[in-house]
Amino acid sequence: MALNPQYEAIGKGFVQQYYAVFDDPTQRGNLVNLYGAENSFMTFEGTQLQGAAKIMEKLNSLQFQKINRIITGVDSQPMFDGGILINVLGRLQTDEDMPHAYVQTFVLKPIEGSFFLQHDIFRLVLHDTI
Amino acid sequence: MALNPQYEAIGKGFVQQYYAVFDDPTQRGNLVNLYGAENSFMTFEGTQLQGAAKIMEKLNSLQFQKINRIITGVDSQPMFDGGILINVLGRLQTDEDMPHAYVQTFVLKPIEGSFFLQHDIFRLVLHDTI
Repeated sequence: MALNPQYEAIGKGFVQQYYAVFDDPTQRGNLVNLYGAENSFMTFEGTQLQGAAKIMEKLNSLQFQKINRIITGVDSQPMFDGGILINVLGRLQTDEDMPHAYVQTFVLKPIEGSFFLQHDIFRLVLHDTI
Repeated sequence: MALNPQYEAIGKGFVQQYYAVFDDPTQRGNLVNLYGAENSFMTFEGTQLQGAAKIMEKLNSLQFQKINRIITGVDSQPMFDGGILINVLGRLQTDEDMPHAYVQTFVLKPIEGSFFLQHDIFRLVLHDTI
């Protein structure tokens, strides 16, 4: 598989779409379609999960209703198997909590003319880090 | 290639070794051995570089002499080609500058019983993100 020359546009487009779905509690369950039944990994605030069912169990357990999100940086790189590595830096505020910076790393893998989400790592940047 | 069951220890060990070399100006040039001549990508504060020569040109152009670094989080995941995805969250202070949080993402790829650094993304978390 060759490097995908569209990696930058695909990375930015994916990030926009992913958060549009994630940030809408009525749509969040649709994220299940992005993850593989077994061959997707998520690390959410240090907790490792494998497979769409466990990942969605975690995402569905999130209690907040409202998210304000600002994306401050998206860095994408093409991978040698046709995948795309995406690093997102942003800020989010859930309900009436304090805003927090966060980082999220995605690896998209090609499948049948589209992509699925093989790797997903999310971490808040806590204030004592700064 | 199978998932590497040692991914967590390898990720943590790599991060320690990488920064021990990076943070010592007399050793930094040795990082060239980690990158492929053509098949390594670095994105440094949004600037994309490909190949060991261009990556080292960037790293050798960094002006600071002294780095204080604290690693606050290392999240690693095994990849399905035997590689390892590593996400680092930390704080660094160069010379007498203000400390900054930063994020760095590495992808290690197996080669002849060892690994090389195929992907490397570095970004400071600027204060206006917080």
